[in-house]
Amino acid sequence: MSQDSVPAIVIGRLPIYLRMLAYLEMEGKSVTSSQELADRLGLSSAQIRKDLSYFGEFGKQGTGYHIGYLQKQLRQILKIDRVWDMIIVGAGNLGRALGHYEGFESHGFRLAGLFDNSEKKIGTMVGNIKIQDVAEMPQVVREKRVQIAVLAVPPEVAQSVADQLVELGVRAILNYAPITLSTPPRAKVYYLDPVVGLQTMTYYLA
Amino acid sequence: MSQDSVPAIVIGRLPIYLRMLAYLEMEGKSVTSSQELADRLGLSSAQIRKDLSYFGEFGKQGTGYHIGYLQKQLRQILKIDRVWDMIIVGAGNLGRALGHYEGFESHGFRLAGLFDNSEKKIGTMVGNIKIQDVAEMPQVVREKRVQIAVLAVPPEVAQSVADQLVELGVRAILNYAPITLSTPPRAKVYYLDPVVGLQTMTYYLA
Repeated sequence: MSQDSVPAIVIGRLPIYLRMLAYLEMEGKSVTSSQELADRLGLSSAQIRKDLSYFGEFGKQGTGYHIGYLQKQLRQILKIDRVWDMIIVGAGNLGRALGHYEGFESHGFRLAGLFDNSEKKIGTMVGNIKIQDVAEMPQVVREKRVQIAVLAVPPEVAQSVADQLVELGVRAILNYAPITLSTPPRAKVYYLDPVVGLQTMTYYLA
Repeated sequence: MSQDSVPAIVIGRLPIYLRMLAYLEMEGKSVTSSQELADRLGLSSAQIRKDLSYFGEFGKQGTGYHIGYLQKQLRQILKIDRVWDMIIVGAGNLGRALGHYEGFESHGFRLAGLFDNSEKKIGTMVGNIKIQDVAEMPQVVREKRVQIAVLAVPPEVAQSVADQLVELGVRAILNYAPITLSTPPRAKVYYLDPVVGLQTMTYYLA
């Protein structure tokens, strides 16, 4: 099946299924159902079955899904059955917090570099990694063939850093800068802007 | 128009329009068009016109939108034409980075409290705010009638903290904990999980 034949919104739900499967496993379960997943995720079971049906048959009528098997399949589909190198650009408060975040390594993302342009920060440590000069970024990206970058830079430089990253071969940008980036179709951007999140919710407040 | 008659996905785009309008204004523009917004945001102009049409007529055929006026209208629709108190729960690396983030205050969100349960952290400062004992959280939420909380706690306690917040009257949770929360319909949750973002993008990588 071609990558683009599955709606992006379906792909976006797979990591959430995977995250829930990990929790169910942690709770000691080895089997689940589309109904249980639906209840825990606030979705409909039909939705979950339909999403998974894009990729094959993972469960049996009446017996449900084997959690370990479904996790393995989803990891394969999402291509996280391998380790991906990633870099973080920007070592401000957020970039440094992300540099400490253990959730990346435990989910198969290896931090291959943390870059900043501040003389005061370059050479200092964040956890186990040394902040490097952003001027060294091209070499690291090329040598390690890094395809994933986390953008934690100020909004006024985010577009130019993104342009440079895409030019260097980066194809996935996790963007914390509060700005909509313009990128060619070959590069994906995932946005994490807390203000957008808050403003989306205030609409519903009294 | 009733709140629920507008699709959530439309509401979710309004803050992004607003963010772009602010950038266009910063660039010195005072008028824009659905076409310009579409080009800058990677959407179609028909989409933008349709989204805005849920709320009224904000532009004129041929002359486009007055940026200042449209911003004001969108702020009113999203109820961010006022200042909202919010709290942050969890003062780990991420919680502290968020405590320093100036984007909240500049967008109308006032940090009314930062809470943790670690004796070592309680009483220490993050920017201008002192970390308080999470035991004091109920009093602060009730006294200031806080409706918005940012959850930056470990996943294993996120659900119980969310339950407590909703019980106290919180209606909007910005959730950084990597777990799907179960909440009653009166409370909204907006998810910001970087791993979900990365895993959504690896699907498209070669």
